[in-house]
Amino acid sequence: MNPYADFTFKLNFLFRSVKIHFSAVTVSKLGLLRTKKMPIELGQRKLQNQKANCTCLNAAFSPLLIFCTVNCLLGLQATPLYCNMLNFQENSVCKLFGIKLPIVQGGMVWVSGWKLAAAVSAQGGLGLIGAGSMYPELLETHIQKCKAAGIEKFGVNLPLLYPHAEAHVEVIIRNRVPVVFTSAGNPALYTQRLKAEGITVVHVIANEKFALKALDAGVDALVAEGFEAGGHNGKEETTTLVLIPQIRKICPVPLLAAGGIASGQSMLAALALGADGVQIGSAFAVCEESSAHTNYKEAVFQSKEGDTQLTLKELTPVRMLKNELFNQLEQAKQNGASKEELKAILGKGRARKGILEGDLQEGELEIGQVAMQLKNSLSVEAYIKKLLQEVEEGLFNLNKIQTT
Amino acid sequence: MNPYADFTFKLNFLFRSVKIHFSAVTVSKLGLLRTKKMPIELGQRKLQNQKANCTCLNAAFSPLLIFCTVNCLLGLQATPLYCNMLNFQENSVCKLFGIKLPIVQGGMVWVSGWKLAAAVSAQGGLGLIGAGSMYPELLETHIQKCKAAGIEKFGVNLPLLYPHAEAHVEVIIRNRVPVVFTSAGNPALYTQRLKAEGITVVHVIANEKFALKALDAGVDALVAEGFEAGGHNGKEETTTLVLIPQIRKICPVPLLAAGGIASGQSMLAALALGADGVQIGSAFAVCEESSAHTNYKEAVFQSKEGDTQLTLKELTPVRMLKNELFNQLEQAKQNGASKEELKAILGKGRARKGILEGDLQEGELEIGQVAMQLKNSLSVEAYIKKLLQEVEEGLFNLNKIQTT
Repeated sequence: MNPYADFTFKLNFLFRSVKIHFSAVTVSKLGLLRTKKMPIELGQRKLQNQKANCTCLNAAFSPLLIFCTVNCLLGLQATPLYCNMLNFQENSVCKLFGIKLPIVQGGMVWVSGWKLAAAVSAQGGLGLIGAGSMYPELLETHIQKCKAAGIEKFGVNLPLLYPHAEAHVEVIIRNRVPVVFTSAGNPALYTQRLKAEGITVVHVIANEKFALKALDAGVDALVAEGFEAGGHNGKEETTTLVLIPQIRKICPVPLLAAGGIASGQSMLAALALGADGVQIGSAFAVCEESSAHTNYKEAVFQSKEGDTQLTLKELTPVRMLKNELFNQLEQAKQNGASKEELKAILGKGRARKGILEGDLQEGELEIGQVAMQLKNSLSVEAYIKKLLQEVEEGLFNLNKIQTT
Repeated sequence: MNPYADFTFKLNFLFRSVKIHFSAVTVSKLGLLRTKKMPIELGQRKLQNQKANCTCLNAAFSPLLIFCTVNCLLGLQATPLYCNMLNFQENSVCKLFGIKLPIVQGGMVWVSGWKLAAAVSAQGGLGLIGAGSMYPELLETHIQKCKAAGIEKFGVNLPLLYPHAEAHVEVIIRNRVPVVFTSAGNPALYTQRLKAEGITVVHVIANEKFALKALDAGVDALVAEGFEAGGHNGKEETTTLVLIPQIRKICPVPLLAAGGIASGQSMLAALALGADGVQIGSAFAVCEESSAHTNYKEAVFQSKEGDTQLTLKELTPVRMLKNELFNQLEQAKQNGASKEELKAILGKGRARKGILEGDLQEGELEIGQVAMQLKNSLSVEAYIKKLLQEVEEGLFNLNKIQTT
């Protein structure tokens, strides 16, 4: 898209490496200064060592010479300040969870077991085990496997609308899970009880009303999820672009943006809107470590614009890929179906059927609007690496709007 | 927004300048090496070792020294990341239209007459006269008043679904309007005819399909408008956050982002997503220079989350504030009303009634989802100043994720 950017990028890289040599040189030179006061035989020994780095001096300075000249000629003074390294040490999300990257993997039914969560945490993000699709015993197994894999920083996503919430909470406390993300329910239910156990509690909201509720309940952080997001969502249809600045105004705790975020560009956009970090769902749902069925992942890769829609506002709004089930529901709604009739059509276990078993027509294929931008299955490691590189490049390009 | 921003800015500026001074000092110190008096035995061998790199030192450091000194003298050059000034000289949107800021004021029915357009263009953006609500004669008057006000760079928004499009095109050509934004229709209709007259043509799209159509028609730029946007919109419901990266991939010409953009934070987010500039509607619709009725502006200021909705997908999707008219339409749809019945309810002149005459119940109050973030009526000058300041602060904060 911008060949010049690539050139300046390389130039920067050169400058950074030269800077490193430069400091090495300074050190050795200072050593050289010391030698002058030393008795000859000591000095001679020092000198032997100097010889080596004198050779590397030349090696180091020639690129410096090239860089400075090119830099002065092309007037690229602005570029040296660009660093091809990101630093989230001061990031409030990283501090809160004790992680390296402000990237949370959303807890997703039938998708995020311990394997996905562990893979994300291992890369410096925060992986969440999705309790929504697990019986308490299974949740306990996943938590223990995650710990057995040597993962300390991870969490459990607890959708309060599902059954077993109470039993889940007991499992979570018994197994000393460090972080819990609650969603789809009243944040006042378990927040204080979990916090009393030293657990960091985050609540997922899609509007200002619930954000205030969650803050009142004393949550440690918020996830603000826009209309674009997959799975269950708010009725207001407020998009991430509009929701984040709105919630930022009233949110004194760390704020994570969710919905429509899969690329480094969108992560950068979320941070620009005032979020401290991001929660990514869809992109992780199609990663190699996700437990979703290959058919489901393939359906996501094949999806085009307009292929997902937020439906079932009458019950609990959910964004899914349009398929046979979706059409049945829409048809029923057009025929003025009642809540009960819709519930009857939906039945039970549709998400399991679609996401875990790969039934593309009868299953509920929950996924976000970014589905159309997901084209292949990467390992979590490869995906996060790509994501961070896009953030770096994006920020580099964004800084071009400033005077140099 | 951020009281510390200015202070941190100064600190950062100081810090960077000092760093530059330091390197300058290091440089000159190293230079001293050449004049060091050494014991003969050491000196001779040192000399041999140093000959090579001293030459390099001189060659390499002199440009660096110049570079540092210039930076110290010019101060700000040392801190391009936080230079407190934005520079859009290289911006493709600014180059295309010959303007200072990549900010376009969307053409809006009953809102954007010559006064609003002229005010925006006078501030360095691009103002658009909304032809959708004008008879050809009235459009001509507005164009001429805009020119009489000494405005050279401005445009006309031409919604192709409205009547008089043909007559509008003749007026536009006769009055040598430099820029035309076409929307809501087939871009192939007038693009080549307008371009043949030396007019810059931009088309507004809400999905990839129409983006490709417009590019085939040979438009000079695209506006990609997300689900959040007010007024007429696409059926796919693709939000700005998801739409921009999608269109960026296939768009070789300048790309403007629209929908959900009212603050500097959201403008920065749009640029992070890959847009070259932004088209802002709602925020300009409530500016002092907008011809919209005070009741309408007041209704926008009072609106809360979820108060706007995209409706009438059966006819032409449009986002409006929920009111009596909206409820009538929704009720009719729930009762399975046909297109004709909906058209009958909508009738004629609803937008005029709502936006120009201020009838808040019977009128069509077109506005974007950001309505809830608009709280008072500013002059275009004050608004754009605020917007740019937010962009600067946002970029300053965003750069904190970089190692320095």
